Amino acid sequence: MVEMHKVIFQPSGRRGEVEDGKTIREAAQELGVDIESVCGGKLTCGKCKVQIHEGFFEKFGIESSMKHTSPLLEQEKKKLTKEEIESGYRLSCNTTIHGDLLVFVPEESRGGGQIVRKTAADIKIRLDPVIKKYYLELNPPTLEDPVGDLERLMAGLSDIHNLKNLTIDYMVLKRLPDVLREGEWKVTVDVRYDKEIVNIRPGYHEQRVGLAIDVGTTTVVGYLTDLDTGKVLAVDSMMNPQVPYGEDVMARITYAMTHEDGLKKMNEAIKKGLNKIIQNVTKEVGLTPEDILELVLVGNTCMHHIFLDINPEYVGLAPFPPATHHSVDVKARDMGLKAAPGAYAHVLPNEAGFVGADNMGVVVATEPHKKDILQLIIDIGTNGEIVLGNKEKLFSTSCATGPAFEGAQIKFGMRAAPGAIERVRIDPETLEPKYKVIGKADWHTHIEKIDARGICGSGIIEVIAEMFKAGIIKKNGTFNMDLQEKTKRIRKNEKGEPEYVLAWKEETSINKDITVTLGDVRAMQLAKAALYTGSKILMKRYGVNEVDRVLLAGAFGSYIDKEASMVIGMFPDCDLKKVKAIGNAAGDGARIALLNKQKRKEADKIARRIRYIELTVDPDFQTEFMMAMHFPHMKDKFPHIQDILDKIPR
Amino acid sequence: MVEMHKVIFQPSGRRGEVEDGKTIREAAQELGVDIESVCGGKLTCGKCKVQIHEGFFEKFGIESSMKHTSPLLEQEKKKLTKEEIESGYRLSCNTTIHGDLLVFVPEESRGGGQIVRKTAADIKIRLDPVIKKYYLELNPPTLEDPVGDLERLMAGLSDIHNLKNLTIDYMVLKRLPDVLREGEWKVTVDVRYDKEIVNIRPGYHEQRVGLAIDVGTTTVVGYLTDLDTGKVLAVDSMMNPQVPYGEDVMARITYAMTHEDGLKKMNEAIKKGLNKIIQNVTKEVGLTPEDILELVLVGNTCMHHIFLDINPEYVGLAPFPPATHHSVDVKARDMGLKAAPGAYAHVLPNEAGFVGADNMGVVVATEPHKKDILQLIIDIGTNGEIVLGNKEKLFSTSCATGPAFEGAQIKFGMRAAPGAIERVRIDPETLEPKYKVIGKADWHTHIEKIDARGICGSGIIEVIAEMFKAGIIKKNGTFNMDLQEKTKRIRKNEKGEPEYVLAWKEETSINKDITVTLGDVRAMQLAKAALYTGSKILMKRYGVNEVDRVLLAGAFGSYIDKEASMVIGMFPDCDLKKVKAIGNAAGDGARIALLNKQKRKEADKIARRIRYIELTVDPDFQTEFMMAMHFPHMKDKFPHIQDILDKIPR
Repeated sequence: MVEMHKVIFQPSGRRGEVEDGKTIREAAQELGVDIESVCGGKLTCGKCKVQIHEGFFEKFGIESSMKHTSPLLEQEKKKLTKEEIESGYRLSCNTTIHGDLLVFVPEESRGGGQIVRKTAADIKIRLDPVIKKYYLELNPPTLEDPVGDLERLMAGLSDIHNLKNLTIDYMVLKRLPDVLREGEWKVTVDVRYDKEIVNIRPGYHEQRVGLAIDVGTTTVVGYLTDLDTGKVLAVDSMMNPQVPYGEDVMARITYAMTHEDGLKKMNEAIKKGLNKIIQNVTKEVGLTPEDILELVLVGNTCMHHIFLDINPEYVGLAPFPPATHHSVDVKARDMGLKAAPGAYAHVLPNEAGFVGADNMGVVVATEPHKKDILQLIIDIGTNGEIVLGNKEKLFSTSCATGPAFEGAQIKFGMRAAPGAIERVRIDPETLEPKYKVIGKADWHTHIEKIDARGICGSGIIEVIAEMFKAGIIKKNGTFNMDLQEKTKRIRKNEKGEPEYVLAWKEETSINKDITVTLGDVRAMQLAKAALYTGSKILMKRYGVNEVDRVLLAGAFGSYIDKEASMVIGMFPDCDLKKVKAIGNAAGDGARIALLNKQKRKEADKIARRIRYIELTVDPDFQTEFMMAMHFPHMKDKFPHIQDILDKIPR
Repeated sequence: MVEMHKVIFQPSGRRGEVEDGKTIREAAQELGVDIESVCGGKLTCGKCKVQIHEGFFEKFGIESSMKHTSPLLEQEKKKLTKEEIESGYRLSCNTTIHGDLLVFVPEESRGGGQIVRKTAADIKIRLDPVIKKYYLELNPPTLEDPVGDLERLMAGLSDIHNLKNLTIDYMVLKRLPDVLREGEWKVTVDVRYDKEIVNIRPGYHEQRVGLAIDVGTTTVVGYLTDLDTGKVLAVDSMMNPQVPYGEDVMARITYAMTHEDGLKKMNEAIKKGLNKIIQNVTKEVGLTPEDILELVLVGNTCMHHIFLDINPEYVGLAPFPPATHHSVDVKARDMGLKAAPGAYAHVLPNEAGFVGADNMGVVVATEPHKKDILQLIIDIGTNGEIVLGNKEKLFSTSCATGPAFEGAQIKFGMRAAPGAIERVRIDPETLEPKYKVIGKADWHTHIEKIDARGICGSGIIEVIAEMFKAGIIKKNGTFNMDLQEKTKRIRKNEKGEPEYVLAWKEETSINKDITVTLGDVRAMQLAKAALYTGSKILMKRYGVNEVDRVLLAGAFGSYIDKEASMVIGMFPDCDLKKVKAIGNAAGDGARIALLNKQKRKEADKIARRIRYIELTVDPDFQTEFMMAMHFPHMKDKFPHIQDILDKIPR
């Protein structure tokens, strides 16, 4: 018998019995308490802090609850202040339960409420979906004409709509007799590729809907789309429920490799998440999941494998072959997704390595292969993907950007949720900041008491750029500590680490100063250097020194300040007028493939044409990466923002 | 809260908590106690008798358990002797539980142990299965050749085996990366119709197996078959687990119509049954269900609909249109059947009404459409199907034979299980019988003490024929009570019904005389009249007075005595030399379709050609049926057995 312990989470009050040896975070998951986690238990993010409350169970004569947990680890100590340690703070991901516990989840550790900036762009798509709708009025059977239901239906489709040699999905056949009679022999038939009957509805039905889903490493978005108008009817999004198993693709692959049911767990998590999105978007417009006639999914190769329940292990090991490059058509039911009885899920093709179906979505949406101009398309996410090319040729690569752009690996980083600082300006004279908080209508200065509780990705890019422009940090990322004379905002924290105070304790809802530390600057340096190096090596391999246009795609796409991103050196110099934020292009590509079947064919063709460049085997990679760590770069010139760089105080 | 009651079944000792209001038979099913049931709760068969034991719970101060059941029904009384009523006998199908109970299941009510006479005939089949096997040795991926696993496999199949444009089943794709590596890039690939990869196995595999299943109304048989040799590797059979829901097709349709989850229950019952057969046959030869690469199923239209989870309601109502005539190819997993990851189940086409895929199996096995001679093919079962024709034209019909041939609706009828009397001879002088009991090696006379406990179908046909030949019963089925002077075996039972004692109490294991009652004779008259009328009307419509050959197919096929069956008049007069028992032709047809893909095409073509004759709308039906109630017939002559008929004492 496994020993069970009572665990209560505050302030939510959720409680339950938990098996001995489980971590507090696992217990929280079981009991439906949302605790932030970015590193997936590797003790690197420190986001999942909780406070073990003493004195509760003692009432019942039980010993101190601190003895009911595993001992404090050395790595844990590094992520906690002395004060926190003394008041019973622990990292919930690595603290196991060995007795009854009362756990307090501080505000900054609470997850949920993310605001997803992946909205459906208003793109023009020629409508030619795989699903066609046919209406039929049939004669009921008589003793003179007792032919079977399916044969009657097929004859009608042949006679009236000239459809021959159709097949019918078994799940549709199962309900055929009842549907025909419910509709009094008048039915709407949905046929896929004019080949297979995937749905049948009693009576006449006007609307046909499909769902495009972008499965990001960190964020999942679904677009419920009208197949006849192309209009997005509803959008829903969520944090990828796999995040607790690993913050990035390598962490998830590692999880799959090191846990016997690792793949199963992650697959079930994403299936559950996708079905929740399916439920939400259909409910929002008064439909049901059964109304979804077709799905299109995109995701990087690792996400692709996990949502298809394919072992991603080999994608993580040289020579990184995916299970398949080609697009995949799978019955939604076989994937465990709720949809119309015979509905398929179409998954766009993979290119190679981690450049997967999501990047194909970007390509489908931006069509670099049809343009004369040379485009550099950067899809910013936890896994960054870059495409470079024009109608002559296309190169692609992927960079392990890490989740810093999504607010992780950053001391006060958080996802784009209410309370997140998303825009920042620093006065170069006073070094005083202004910032904008998500959930507040307008800009506020620090003087107002607002409920900031962290910094999201776009805020981090801006604060780093502003700190650099104000001279607070140098080209190499170190702090200019001389400025301490000028402002109290620059200081060393209790661990001796330089930091800049973006918001004073009094302005926050977490009762702590929100700071940007040297560690945060380093994380951003690594992330932006990955993108810069990827872009530069692609350009070098392509044989060009500049590009005609830079497209910034991704969850941040439309929100990243392009000047700030160039100031920190996320990509090589370029006329800012030629830089464009295009929003969630992967999701747009999924919608396009949902609405136009030719684009699917095209995607399969292009996927084979795109040449994948493995960055890490490039002899210059290490040197380039190291040089790209500087703001904006150690050596490369940035003539287009030279005026800005010139103003930076030395 | 539903009230629960403790119920214990003896002699098995099975016990459990049962909801208030459930019938004793439902409780038995729940607790895994096998009680015979033929009529499915209609109070017509009386096979499900149990004895409510008093004096058990009283020990615990609980009131008489007789008060713990619903009151005795009038119809129940008709099925019970006075003695039985007094000793607490009830029909378990209609007795509901309203308190704790101890129930005794007498031997004659116990199910199980059926001996299925559907063995795999040694038929010759040209081997050309839908599944082909391809062996491949691939080069592992390298950094220079990092192409995806599926594309590598497809290239190999194209280069080495010239297979182009293949698709792969999603479940096979899911395991592809692991299988390729487990086999060190050597794999055996199973391809269906040279189109779809339905299975992949690491390394080289010689054997390919498939399963042919005949889903009869009463009996289900599975033949595990080697796809390369055609050899039947294992046979398993069981009573159709739907029998408790209704003894014949109309009863099952009624159950589906009158119970909200009726179809679901019956579908789940047969699925569970089929999976048990799948488990048993594969285990027997050291394989697993995953080794089954293809299944073929046959069954009458009602069985077809139920195992495909299609509402059978409309098949039971004029104009009786099936959901589909055409053969159906369904992923085994979609039907809930265990097999290889991508395996299909092929279901042979339906003709019309209740003449379904099983009769197509008979046609495939006997090929009347290829013969010059005119054949009358009678498939005897709970639902009887008849085909008449030659290569010119084919007619078919179905008759509601009822389960009498399977030992039901007969007072001491039972299925072909140990203890069943299967052969009978009556001395016309002494009127003393000899009989053979299943499970005994040889013939025994009544003098030996043997463990007879009932009469199975073939026994009933023989005893009726022998009783008729000995003059015990007359042409119209009534008893010649004058013979009471000659033998004590002819008597009236306590209800005043004439009967013939086939076995004295002392010779049986049920401690009761085994008799053949007037009611039994009437049930057989109805059953044989249905077959005779069907055959005769088909012949009339076809425009012939005699046929060149009669084939008797079905569970009994090889065991029915052809002389006895003609003596009672199961079919019109014919030279006995031209009558042939051919065993389970429906199952043979399923095996043929499993082994030869051309036969499937042929079946679909022939199914459309066979003309279905609805007997009940024939103006002569009632008159013909009435006349066919006589032994062998009221008016028709039987010149080929005239010598036998002449010997019958008047």
